[in-house]
Formats: sequence, structure tokens, C-alpha cells
Amino acid sequence: MIKIGILGAAGYTGGELIRLLINHPQAEIVFANSESNAGNPVTDVHEGLYGDTDMCFTSDMPFDKVDVVFFCFGHGKSRQFLQEHDIPANVKIIDLAQDFRLAEPGNDYVYGLPEINRDKIAKANHVANPGCFATCIQLGLLPAAAMKLINDDVAVNAITGSTGAGQKPGATTHFSWRNNNLSIYKAFSHQHVPEIRQSLTQVQGSLDADIDFIPYRGDFARGIFATCVVKTDAQADEIIEGYKSFYKDAPFTHYVDKAIDLKQVVNTNKCLVHCDKFGNKLLITSCIDNLLKGAVGQAVQNMNIMFGIDETEGLRLKPTAF
Amino acid sequence: MIKIGILGAAGYTGGELIRLLINHPQAEIVFANSESNAGNPVTDVHEGLYGDTDMCFTSDMPFDKVDVVFFCFGHGKSRQFLQEHDIPANVKIIDLAQDFRLAEPGNDYVYGLPEINRDKIAKANHVANPGCFATCIQLGLLPAAAMKLINDDVAVNAITGSTGAGQKPGATTHFSWRNNNLSIYKAFSHQHVPEIRQSLTQVQGSLDADIDFIPYRGDFARGIFATCVVKTDAQADEIIEGYKSFYKDAPFTHYVDKAIDLKQVVNTNKCLVHCDKFGNKLLITSCIDNLLKGAVGQAVQNMNIMFGIDETEGLRLKPTAF
Amino acid sequence: MIKIGILGAAGYTGGELIRLLINHPQAEIVFANSESNAGNPVTDVHEGLYGDTDMCFTSDMPFDKVDVVFFCFGHGKSRQFLQEHDIPANVKIIDLAQDFRLAEPGNDYVYGLPEINRDKIAKANHVANPGCFATCIQLGLLPAAAMKLINDDVAVNAITGSTGAGQKPGATTHFSWRNNNLSIYKAFSHQHVPEIRQSLTQVQGSLDADIDFIPYRGDFARGIFATCVVKTDAQADEIIEGYKSFYKDAPFTHYVDKAIDLKQVVNTNKCLVHCDKFGNKLLITSCIDNLLKGAVGQAVQNMNIMFGIDETEGLRLKPTAF
Amino acid sequence: MIKIGILGAAGYTGGELIRLLINHPQAEIVFANSESNAGNPVTDVHEGLYGDTDMCFTSDMPFDKVDVVFFCFGHGKSRQFLQEHDIPANVKIIDLAQDFRLAEPGNDYVYGLPEINRDKIAKANHVANPGCFATCIQLGLLPAAAMKLINDDVAVNAITGSTGAGQKPGATTHFSWRNNNLSIYKAFSHQHVPEIRQSLTQVQGSLDADIDFIPYRGDFARGIFATCVVKTDAQADEIIEGYKSFYKDAPFTHYVDKAIDLKQVVNTNKCLVHCDKFGNKLLITSCIDNLLKGAVGQAVQNMNIMFGIDETEGLRLKPTAF
Repeated sequence: MIKIGILGAAGYTGGELIRLLINHPQAEIVFANSESNAGNPVTDVHEGLYGDTDMCFTSDMPFDKVDVVFFCFGHGKSRQFLQEHDIPANVKIIDLAQDFRLAEPGNDYVYGLPEINRDKIAKANHVANPGCFATCIQLGLLPAAAMKLINDDVAVNAITGSTGAGQKPGATTHFSWRNNNLSIYKAFSHQHVPEIRQSLTQVQGSLDADIDFIPYRGDFARGIFATCVVKTDAQADEIIEGYKSFYKDAPFTHYVDKAIDLKQVVNTNKCLVHCDKFGNKLLITSCIDNLLKGAVGQAVQNMNIMFGIDETEGLRLKPTAF
Repeated sequence: MIKIGILGAAGYTGGELIRLLINHPQAEIVFANSESNAGNPVTDVHEGLYGDTDMCFTSDMPFDKVDVVFFCFGHGKSRQFLQEHDIPANVKIIDLAQDFRLAEPGNDYVYGLPEINRDKIAKANHVANPGCFATCIQLGLLPAAAMKLINDDVAVNAITGSTGAGQKPGATTHFSWRNNNLSIYKAFSHQHVPEIRQSLTQVQGSLDADIDFIPYRGDFARGIFATCVVKTDAQADEIIEGYKSFYKDAPFTHYVDKAIDLKQVVNTNKCLVHCDKFGNKLLITSCIDNLLKGAVGQAVQNMNIMFGIDETEGLRLKPTAF
Repeated sequence: MIKIGILGAAGYTGGELIRLLINHPQAEIVFANSESNAGNPVTDVHEGLYGDTDMCFTSDMPFDKVDVVFFCFGHGKSRQFLQEHDIPANVKIIDLAQDFRLAEPGNDYVYGLPEINRDKIAKANHVANPGCFATCIQLGLLPAAAMKLINDDVAVNAITGSTGAGQKPGATTHFSWRNNNLSIYKAFSHQHVPEIRQSLTQVQGSLDADIDFIPYRGDFARGIFATCVVKTDAQADEIIEGYKSFYKDAPFTHYVDKAIDLKQVVNTNKCLVHCDKFGNKLLITSCIDNLLKGAVGQAVQNMNIMFGIDETEGLRLKPTAF
Repeated sequence: MIKIGILGAAGYTGGELIRLLINHPQAEIVFANSESNAGNPVTDVHEGLYGDTDMCFTSDMPFDKVDVVFFCFGHGKSRQFLQEHDIPANVKIIDLAQDFRLAEPGNDYVYGLPEINRDKIAKANHVANPGCFATCIQLGLLPAAAMKLINDDVAVNAITGSTGAGQKPGATTHFSWRNNNLSIYKAFSHQHVPEIRQSLTQVQGSLDADIDFIPYRGDFARGIFATCVVKTDAQADEIIEGYKSFYKDAPFTHYVDKAIDLKQVVNTNKCLVHCDKFGNKLLITSCIDNLLKGAVGQAVQNMNIMFGIDETEGLRLKPTAF
């Protein structure tokens, strides 16, 4: 059994991680840390767990009793936490924040996108789990990058559910405002673009094009649905062949011949990808569940790879479908 | 032109009142008071007003320049405000809070339900506007009370939209939680029951039965849909006749022969009522828009009556329908 | 491995059954029958299965190759099917329709509610799976019946998601109409009342009270949320003790001390139950996922019991939560 | 009073037109034609009209008694209807279908977008009302075209509510499927692109760029929200000045300095437009209510212009806001 510690266990990603791990046949949660909720049952905070667990949040962090720690902090706090605490060298870390996603001198975190870094993840002690938008958009674009097709600016539109905005209530997650509403934010400046560029560069060799990303706030709770438009003269059938080939060994990312819709992936760890060609424009559609493939599902997938067990363990989830 | 002051203008009811009054042909907003938003355009806070008004919130309260003041405060603050401020005697007050809804010695506020108090409202200087749930449930039950049919405990279930919970974000109005969810709160103890009892007693003469009211939080933004079950041996056709007769002069409350649904009334000042009889049980369905007939629509209706103009002025609204 | 045939595999319950069984460690789908879709991949019809299965619908029904058949027909068609086809005596049948739920001479189907009939189900060849509303309401009322508390008419209000109305599009499942809407239907006359009465009578010994059931159409896709009000002078603590005791061995039905909400159970096989006492009124809240505990989840639970395997096998599902 | 006939009165646009016209102070509906519903009250079909009208659908079409006829047919049927029926020359026609939107020899219909064709509409006998997507996207792009900025391919993403798909239930408007879902359709090939190109060409003089339009199905009922990205080196402040100037006389189309959201326009005849500049990319956001500014609201606006009355008559609508 892989022994697990969770930091920031009372947030959305912490809760979803608990939901996954209590049914993971080879994992055991040793502690779920939340200062502000210490002593309270996790069912006080997280939906859907009545009858599944009597676990309580703890203020303890017994790192000597775990094999891996998941950081479910907000962005910026992972780095700060590590400055203030010592985690034993033999304890693996999977960080869900963006603190260590970009390669730089002294950063030993492997970028945890198994579709391109599986071997490195398998050997890693530290993994930086990709962002939710970044996962969905990259998985749409990477096969094109592998074919070296991304040579002009890419128009990216992606719509996220409200869980992407976290647990703290605010104006744009107020039901009265968000229900039946649509809006955009951080257009052309979203913080996930650098990690998308990093991966595209890794796969294509270089990247001399803009990723023009417009994020939308959707009126649903789970999921990201993205469209990317790439200018290319490559033939549709070769492109599709390249996409299928790129993901042929990926257990959760699938090229689909038909048009896709968001609810195909809600409550699963999957990413679905579909392509159409119109003249010299390649339209790529991709979708994920932002809390699963876009966050803790992928984190558990990374954990499975790091510990050498079946990559799909604990992740063969029944889709919600409706 | 009726000159109007609005206190608490930055909340949900304040905003909806502004939306109504800017198109009211015989009304003019003189000031829309909000300390915390003073100087800012109302469009900064309230949806739907771009292009309709350049009005700004004010910290002033020039009572000498208005004919009527609407109190759009939270419950309890109206009474407090009146203790701390002098409003000229010739300025009428319409209070949307529950502070003055219940008759008691020294309370000169008329309960502002036109369907039973039109004449008193016409002569009133001070009107206490009914609660949203109270309006929907009363309008369902009052014709039965007029026929003296309420002699056994009444089972009441009513579901409200999220705007009923106000503008301040919180756990139960967080989109991620509320979307596709249902729950109940304050069962058998909701604060609107006393005003419902007061009206039923007024119309029936006495009331010796419980109003067993279970409020639900619905996953929509606007509207209240209620069912009431009354035990009675009266005949269905007589009951329906009584209902139609009771509302024959009401411009906004209608008995409907067919089954009703909530979206029939959304974005209108209407209340629809429908009855079915099963054995000795009378099932009454009623619905309103909680912000309109359940709050400021009825408040404007009361204003119209108080100032002797057409009761429907400014309230012939296009329903949203979808 | 339990070998399984599915009839009516292209409907909502058929699809949800496939979603469950492809991850069931001790089950194997041998055929998924649908005349109109024969030869097409199940992914053409059912959301959420891309990458999980390449199974195609079949027009065949090789009953000699299966251990159990699930009838996912519309109501009335199960009986008709059995008149027109021979199913070998050694093949177990789990019928999701209402054709065999009521005991009558010659009906050898066991009513498949494990909370009261586990032993009978374990020995049964034929199981009639309970209705969705019936499951939610019964599980709310049965412990009270066991304490013989149901001696006066019970007020029942229950709200269902749109999947309860099946796959065929119609006026009341049109998104434009149903979104943000509420309505009732079949009040006091819903077809599930007789099976509720049957179970209450079985547990209480007799039942001399009306079950006044008002079904609502909710604006969500999955789930049923019910309230029942029972008049009783029994003490709250005794009642709650009785509820906890009644479900102490039920793996999926749990008494919860705190107020519950629908999304606690969505995409799970659970039923949650909560009680409050107000004067002489006992208010019981219960909720389920209509497609799982209200349909195929319970059907698989019954299958597990019938075949003597762990009752929770294949049913430890990650809740959607959001 | 303008006397009005409605053909195709039982569809979504027919219903919305009735909702508008019953409160229009200078209009009177003479007949609302629907063969299949002849004799039935309009309240049997259209939500929101109880208490507002007792009108019934008719199979008659007394063209001699009306000043203007609205064609609320499905696309293609307007042309067919005119071949089979004679409408007196003095009766004006406003066609909501796409049959006559594109200029061609013999087509005397004026394209009914008041923001660019007000003078022509004022003199027109026949008006072709623009498409819903076309209205939202054009109004976003036309000021840029007036500044001759559209010289490279434009990336357009626009999301529509379910009412855009009409009244007939189908797979993609089934609540169970559409709720919380997202998908695209007719990418790069939507039928509204030609009319968008026609208007852009009219205003810019020529158009040598693709309009790469990806339409999305949103999980709400009313509204269209669009983003357009135009490559240009023009300065942001000049662009914004141009936008404000372009719409300075438009009563319903407004440039807004802040970011906009869809519910700002729901249940209004408005179009809101907002611009941001990022490097050499101009991002334009625009939104409308698809049934109002995108259909019958604009049709009534056109009628007002054609009959020389105040353009906003009957169209100063209370926004739903929530």
C-alpha cells in the first residue's frame, strides 16, 4: 500500500483526491491536513463521502509515515511551505499548484503530463502536476506539435466549470450571477500559457507562434471544453493518423472520430480529442474534467507511474454521463 | 411624477427596483442610496442596466425631495434606521423587510398584499411589503381561507431560487454547490409563517391549524413554486369557483385551469394559482417571481395603489418564458 | 465471472448498466441487445464510454450463454417479452420495469429492495427492481414503519431529475422549457405508490393511512430528493435510534446526523436519510441517484446478492460531488 | 395602431413576438396564424402569457386587415409561402427566416440591421430580419470594418442558448443531454457567415479575409455570447473611439468600457460590445438575447422604423438580470 499524506485537504482538489483515494486499491490516506478544519470529519466539508469514510482532518503532518505527499495548496503556497518545512528526501511530492511547473535551474520537479513525460515521471521524486486548462489545451495541440504543424498563431478558446475557481465563494461563482451566464477573463494573459508553450516547444523542438488563449467562465460545475485552430497545409488524414498514433499508448487520452461533447468526460480521468480540417485550418476539439484529468486524477495517475503500479489503478471511474 | 428615494439600493431588491422604475412612466428615481457604493454608477453593481441609465449611487438621502422611500434593507435594519433618522411625515414609506409586517400596538404599517388589503393600502402612508415565500403561499391559500376551508394542518412545500438568499456570496449560493442540487432549510420554522397565519386569520376569521412549511433551495435564480395540501370535504367545482371569484379583480393574480409551471411567471409581477382535488385533499399549486411579486414588483404595485394611479403601471413586463 | 445479457440496452438504464458493468470485476457483458441499434457501437448512443469499450449492440439474444438477464424495457414490455420468448429456467432475471413489483398469485418475482428483502433476493431467480421514486420514499419511511409510526396520512414531496423521464425527447424534457423551471405531475396518483404501500405494509404489519405523494420535475438531470412528514408522538431520539438501527447493516443506505443535499449521492448507489422532529411531526429527508440506487445500481446490488458475492462489488463509485 | 398578422405563430419566435406585441402601445395583433393549433388559446403553447391575453391561434390569414405581416417560419418556408399566397402590395413583410437576407437580383428585401441600414429600412416594404448569430457577430465586427481593420482572418467563437434550436425537441435539446454540457456544430460552415460577410463588405468596401466561425451549444436557454479576434496594428484608444462613435446613435447597441457578461442582455433588445487590445490582436466581445435582438426584438425594432414611430417603442424591456 502506498501511504499518502494530503496537505490542503479541505479545498476542492483535496476533497476530490480523498474521493479518489478511498477507493484506490493500493493506496491508503495516512493524514489529510487542514489547520482550519482539524478534528472535523471530512464529511463536514466534502460532498459525497457519507458512508464512505469516518476520516477527520488533522493538524498533524507525520511525514515519516508516508510515501508521498500531495500539495493541494493554492498557487504560490507550495514553494513557501517547502521553505518553512522539511520533508524527508525519501518522501515523494506531487504538487498541484503551478509553483514548479516551469523548468528552471534548481527546479527538480518533472512536469507531470504522462502523455509526453511518462518515463521521467516514473523516475521522479518530485512532480509538478499540470494546470487544468493547460492539460486540456496541450493534449489538443501536442500531436500537431509532434508533426511540427504549429507555425502560425493558434486561436484557443476554452470554457471552464465553476470548480476551477475554487471553494471560496465570490462574485463570479455566486449562483445567482453565474447560472445561465457566460463571460471571459484573463484573455491572452492566462497563467497556463507558459506551461503550454513549454510542452509544445519540448515536442516540436521550437515554437515561434502565439497561443492566443481566451478563457471563458461556463455555467456548469465540472469540465473544460476547448477549441484550437491551427493553420496548416497538412492533409486531414495524415493529421488524424498522427493524432491516433500519438495517443495509441495513452490509457486516458483518446482520439475520437466523431464530434465530442463535454459530458463524455465528466467524472472521468479521460481527455477526448477530435479534429476537423477546413481549408488550411485545423480545428481541434478537446475536453477533460478539470478536477480529474485537469488536477487530482492526473495527480493519481502520476502517483501510479511513480510507484510502478498500473497507471489506471483507482482511476477507472464511472462517468456521470448526465 | 412620483419622486422616489431608494435606501439599500445596491442589494438585489434595490437593483430590481431600479430596473422597474427606470421604465415606470409615472415615477422618477431621485436618489439611490448606498454608502459603500456612493459615487459609483449603478451599472457597476446591477446587471442589465447598461444603456438604460447613467445613475450613480449616492450617500445622500434628500427626503425633502421625494414622495416615497423604499427600504431595501436587510431584515431588522428598517426599524433601526427609523430610530436613527427622521423621515418627514408626508413621505410615504414602503418597507421590503419584515420589520413591520405583523400587526402590533403602535405599528401603523399596512400589510401590503393588495389581494386582501387594497383599500387600506390606498390610504396608507406606511406599507410593509410581504415576504416572498409568504406571498406565494398566501395567494395559494387565501381563497380557501375565504371559504373557511382551512381547519386541519396544511402541508406546504415551496422551492425558491437563489436570489432569495441575497447578494452576499456564501456556501449555499456557491454555484459549484448549488448547481443541480436540492436541499431544505428552516423546515417548520421559517420566519414567513407568522405573516401567512396573520393573513389567513384575517380572511377566515380564525385559524386553528398548523402551517407545516418546508422551504427548499432550488437550483435556479428566480422564482418560487409552492404546493399546499388542505384537507376538506368541499366539492372541487365549488372550490375552483371560489378561487376564480376571489381573484376576479386582481390584475396580477390569476387562477389557471391547467397545470402551471414556474417559468410562466419568471420576470413578471404575476402569481398563478391552480387547484386539484383528490379525495378529501385539496392540492393548490402557486408560483411567483420572488424578486417581483415576491418583493419589488409588489412594492411598486403598492406604490401605484398608494398614489392612486393604475395598479399595473410600470408592471406590464415581458415574461422571460425561457 | 457472472455472464450478463442486457435487453433494451440502448435506453438510459441500459446505458447506465453498461457503464457500471464494464468496471465490475466479477461481471462480463455477453450481449447488449437493441434491435434498432444492432451493429452500432454503444458509444454511438451512450455518453461517457469512449475508450472504455468497443462493444456493439446486437440483435442477438443468446440466453444459453448468460447467467442473468437485465430487462431494461419500458414498463409493460417485460411481461410481453416473456410471453413471446423463452428464457431458460437457469437464467436469472432482473426486471427494471414495474411489471412484476406487486405481489400477486403466480408472480414469483422478489421485490428487490435489499434493505428489507436481502435474504429473499439471495435465493431468488427473478427479481423485480423497485421504482426510483419508490426507492427513495420507502427508504425514508421504512424505519418509521418498522417502529409502527405510520398511522396517519403521510405528506410526501419528491423531486426528480430529467433522466427519470427517459431518453425520448418531449415537451417536458426540452431544455428550453425545463431549464430553471419547476412543475408537478401525477400528484396523488403516481404509479409508484402501490409498491411503497406494499413495502410499508410488509414492515409495519398493516397500513391504514394515505401516502399523499406529489412528484415534481426538477431542473437537473440526476437524482431524487424527497421529504416525508409523519405524525407521531414518538420521541426524536428514539426515532433516530430506530433509523440508525434499521440501516446498520445496509452498505449503501445511511442515516446522516446533519442535513443532507442531493449532490451527496449523485453518481453513487447510496441513499441518505435524515430526520427532524417538530412537535408531533416527523420530517424525513431522503435522497438517491435515480439511475443508480433508483434503478441499475440497485439492480447490480441485487445481482451481487443473488450470486453470493460482495454486495458492494462494482458499486463503490466516486461521487460526482459537483 | 399598427395592425399585425403573424404567420408561424406557434413557434418560439412567434411566441416571443406575441409577448412583445401585447404590450406594444402602438401595435395590435389582428391574427396569429398556426394551422396545427387553430382555435387553441396561445397560452396553451406559449409560456408566460396567462392573464395577459385570451387570443387564440387562427387558421385565417386576413391580409386585408393588417399593415404588416411577420413571417416566423422555419428557413426556406417564407419563399415557398410567397409562391403559394398573394399578399397585398400595401402590406409590409418582415421575414425572420434567412430566405431573403442575401442581396441578389430580384430580391427587394432590405437587410434589417438598423445599425447600418436604418434609412433603407425606413423606406422598405420588405425587410429580411438578420440571423441571431449574424447579429451578435456583425455588431461586434462592424465598427472595425468601418475603420477598415478587417484584413486578416477573423477567429470567431460564439455560444448560443437552446432556444436557438427551436421548439421541436431533439437529441441536442434534450435536457438530460444538454444540461451542464458543451459542444460545437457547423464549425467553419454555419449558414450565417454569408450575411456577416455581406454586411462587412458593405461597411468596409471589400473583404478579403476568412470569418472562421465556431458555433457552440451552450447550456442555457437564452442568449448569444461571441468573441472575435482581429489582427490589426491600430491603437486601442482609436479603436475604442471608433466603436463608440459607430454606435452613438444606436438605441440598443452600446459600447461598454468594462468586461461584459451574457446576463446583461437577457430579455432585452440590447447588444453590448466591449474591446481589448493585446499586442496586434483586437479582442471584441459582444452579446445579445438571441430571441430579441437576435430575432423578434430586432423585427419589432424594424417595424417601428418602417412605420416611422419611436424605434424603442415596445422594446424598453426589464432585463431578467438573474
